[in-house]
Amino acid sequence: MKTRIVLSEDDLPRQWYNLAADLPTPLRPPLGPDGKPVSPSMLEPIFPHGLIEQEVSPKRWIDIPEEVRAVLARWRPSPLHRAHGLEKALGTPARIYYKNESLSPAGSHKPNTAVAQAYYNKKEGVKRLSTETGAGQWGSALAFACALFEIECKVFMVRISFDQKPYRKIMMETWGAECVASPSGETKAGRDILASDPGSPGNLAIAISEAVEAAVTDPQHRTKYALGSVLNHVLLHQTVIGLEAKKQLKKAGEKRLDVVIGCAGGGSNFAGLAFPFVYDKIHGAKMEIIPVEPASCPTMTMGPFVYDIGDASGMTPLLPMYSLGHTFMPEPIHAGGLRYHGMAPLVSAAINDGLLKPRAIGQLECFAGAVLFARSEGIIVAPETSHAVACAIQEAKKAKEEGKEKVILFNLSGHGLLDLKGYQDYLAGTLQDHALSREVLAKNLEAIKDYPKPEPVGAGK
Amino acid sequence: MKTRIVLSEDDLPRQWYNLAADLPTPLRPPLGPDGKPVSPSMLEPIFPHGLIEQEVSPKRWIDIPEEVRAVLARWRPSPLHRAHGLEKALGTPARIYYKNESLSPAGSHKPNTAVAQAYYNKKEGVKRLSTETGAGQWGSALAFACALFEIECKVFMVRISFDQKPYRKIMMETWGAECVASPSGETKAGRDILASDPGSPGNLAIAISEAVEAAVTDPQHRTKYALGSVLNHVLLHQTVIGLEAKKQLKKAGEKRLDVVIGCAGGGSNFAGLAFPFVYDKIHGAKMEIIPVEPASCPTMTMGPFVYDIGDASGMTPLLPMYSLGHTFMPEPIHAGGLRYHGMAPLVSAAINDGLLKPRAIGQLECFAGAVLFARSEGIIVAPETSHAVACAIQEAKKAKEEGKEKVILFNLSGHGLLDLKGYQDYLAGTLQDHALSREVLAKNLEAIKDYPKPEPVGAGK
Repeated sequence: MKTRIVLSEDDLPRQWYNLAADLPTPLRPPLGPDGKPVSPSMLEPIFPHGLIEQEVSPKRWIDIPEEVRAVLARWRPSPLHRAHGLEKALGTPARIYYKNESLSPAGSHKPNTAVAQAYYNKKEGVKRLSTETGAGQWGSALAFACALFEIECKVFMVRISFDQKPYRKIMMETWGAECVASPSGETKAGRDILASDPGSPGNLAIAISEAVEAAVTDPQHRTKYALGSVLNHVLLHQTVIGLEAKKQLKKAGEKRLDVVIGCAGGGSNFAGLAFPFVYDKIHGAKMEIIPVEPASCPTMTMGPFVYDIGDASGMTPLLPMYSLGHTFMPEPIHAGGLRYHGMAPLVSAAINDGLLKPRAIGQLECFAGAVLFARSEGIIVAPETSHAVACAIQEAKKAKEEGKEKVILFNLSGHGLLDLKGYQDYLAGTLQDHALSREVLAKNLEAIKDYPKPEPVGAGK
Repeated sequence: MKTRIVLSEDDLPRQWYNLAADLPTPLRPPLGPDGKPVSPSMLEPIFPHGLIEQEVSPKRWIDIPEEVRAVLARWRPSPLHRAHGLEKALGTPARIYYKNESLSPAGSHKPNTAVAQAYYNKKEGVKRLSTETGAGQWGSALAFACALFEIECKVFMVRISFDQKPYRKIMMETWGAECVASPSGETKAGRDILASDPGSPGNLAIAISEAVEAAVTDPQHRTKYALGSVLNHVLLHQTVIGLEAKKQLKKAGEKRLDVVIGCAGGGSNFAGLAFPFVYDKIHGAKMEIIPVEPASCPTMTMGPFVYDIGDASGMTPLLPMYSLGHTFMPEPIHAGGLRYHGMAPLVSAAINDGLLKPRAIGQLECFAGAVLFARSEGIIVAPETSHAVACAIQEAKKAKEEGKEKVILFNLSGHGLLDLKGYQDYLAGTLQDHALSREVLAKNLEAIKDYPKPEPVGAGK
């Protein structure tokens, strides 16, 4: 009775899978403020050519450089676990599997793309990367990757997290990165905010503005910007997760797969696991593929498919995506990585094409699932990951009711050892659920009503 | 160029290795307060038969129950890493390997024995385990194991750590354990301390007294006690580490091994890696085997080989070991797991037989090594583990000076994600070194001068 299916270093994928090559409806382009498509060359001040090429590539398979594979091989292929303990606790006939991305040195899936991004920047002579981080998962992953490729790393961390989660900052500094609270006095964007609100707690949008500004205004032109989710090249780098999982399910003797689940904030860990299976679905396989979001930030289940900006102030192009409107301020739930108003264009397009069935779950049910998982499987997952766990439990219970031996796969995107406060609140009974009202949504959508509309609109939702 | 050598589930050892079968000088028995050897039956109120049998077993190989292997297989065999990044940073001709025990769900090697102990207790009908924990590594590992075997778990956590490290307590509670600050009002031992010192910060000795008392005084006779290091059966359970490492070095193509290194507080992670190699050394292999301790708690390098009690108040038998005296109060270094006055009898005997060469290193050098390791290898190690890292660096530099292609192996016993304060202090330049003075040592040894002496005393040191 295998509990863990491992692969050898030789099984680490040699190519990333690009879903853009297979989408039924071609991906709509990002648009500039003038409503015209953004050309690749307009991205050059921000990203290196290697990544811009991937961002717009129509190729199905893209080679993974050996230098990137060598670093990923420090923890990849990651194990696939059979959740015997959870199955027993639920008394389900379903067979539940999870891909364990918590074993990377930064504790999540984020290093999969951080390593690739650091590599391409290093290769093109970039000396320094700037980025933003909310709760700190992405900032620490990029700090880790920059240490290994000997690039400087500057992280603008949302002030409220900077103050509340000092450990993430220490991780980044241990890896040699510089981490400052945002809004900071180091950029015009930050100074403008501080001038009007000296005690601003910051948010991801402000931090993005600062990080982009720090890259484009570097007088020595040695800095580029890096993003941890949303963009096509970021999702591309994560597909090693699903490609490995396919081999592992085969090794486990599974002939079919019924349900694929991942939590989705910007969409990268979900896409990483799911896209190689979306390929199968496009080509006739029958399965449900579920991105799971918080009920308090229901981008995919309540938001419309629109063009919206990726930050709050328009430093980014307009992206074709499900969005709650860039002015939306999510409740301060513990799953900080899922508090984002939009959703990756590739994930959004797949939803719009009817390939994915998004689901929203409240944080109380998520933490209940995470505690059951910890006690039956032994792993304490990140608050973000608890959404995937809770959805897998829902599906396993459904299989029990239906008396079906379903095969369920979810992504264990990260561990929760630096986010234990959420568990403390849940166990103490002080945690609350939040839901988004139609009124608040309508108010936020008002701000984007004059933006260009994605055409043709798919028949999806 | 392999960076990670993995084994399949089938390679998980089927037997533990018991060094007691091979020591040149037979292990001296523990003694009661009357100076007479403690018989196995005297341990029955505290431990289940399965563990007592292992504690006194003369057998070289002891079968690992399949039920224990099935749980260990959730993260074992653990990977062996080649430290290419560290080697490059040091410019050393040495080949450095490390066994990565940080990937267990509790983040250290401790679950290797926690799982075995939970299994034997469960098998004999024990409903509840009580234990003590200092910084929390052991308490969380036992909580994890008890969750999987559905046994209750009660942890007495040293008050000062309980207050300073709330996250460890949350981990234990997430796994369903109960964790109270020690001294507590729940035991006579705790109440006595509180009566004389209501604000007592506690220490490991008091917590041991409380945990043992909670087991032996349980009116329903359903509670036993569990210990995370020092004892023979605990070290036995850790030998899966070294047995796996042997297979992995062979798989990596290494024909010999020159240096084996592990940090040592009670001795269990060191023993786990080293004892299978001590076997080789006893049988003629030439290598240096180095247990590393803090300069501020130099049990092996400054303490004499004596009989001393394992706690502070004599709840435990007298054990034959290197000791600084049970009244010794180590400085509050960040490596909380290495702050212990004694050393495991098996490790002590091997030192006394000249098989091991202990070394003491100050915490500044340890953290410098850990930061270099994080930036070159990507992994942030526990403060305890930093002692092994620093020693490996010393040996790699020596190999460089000598121009020798030495093969060095050390145990990465745990990650430091719940102990980042030490890194913060180091990076801020506020960390201090501490050394033990001969005067303080002499004063502490005064308290045990009338204890029985180990006879015959080996020629070791």
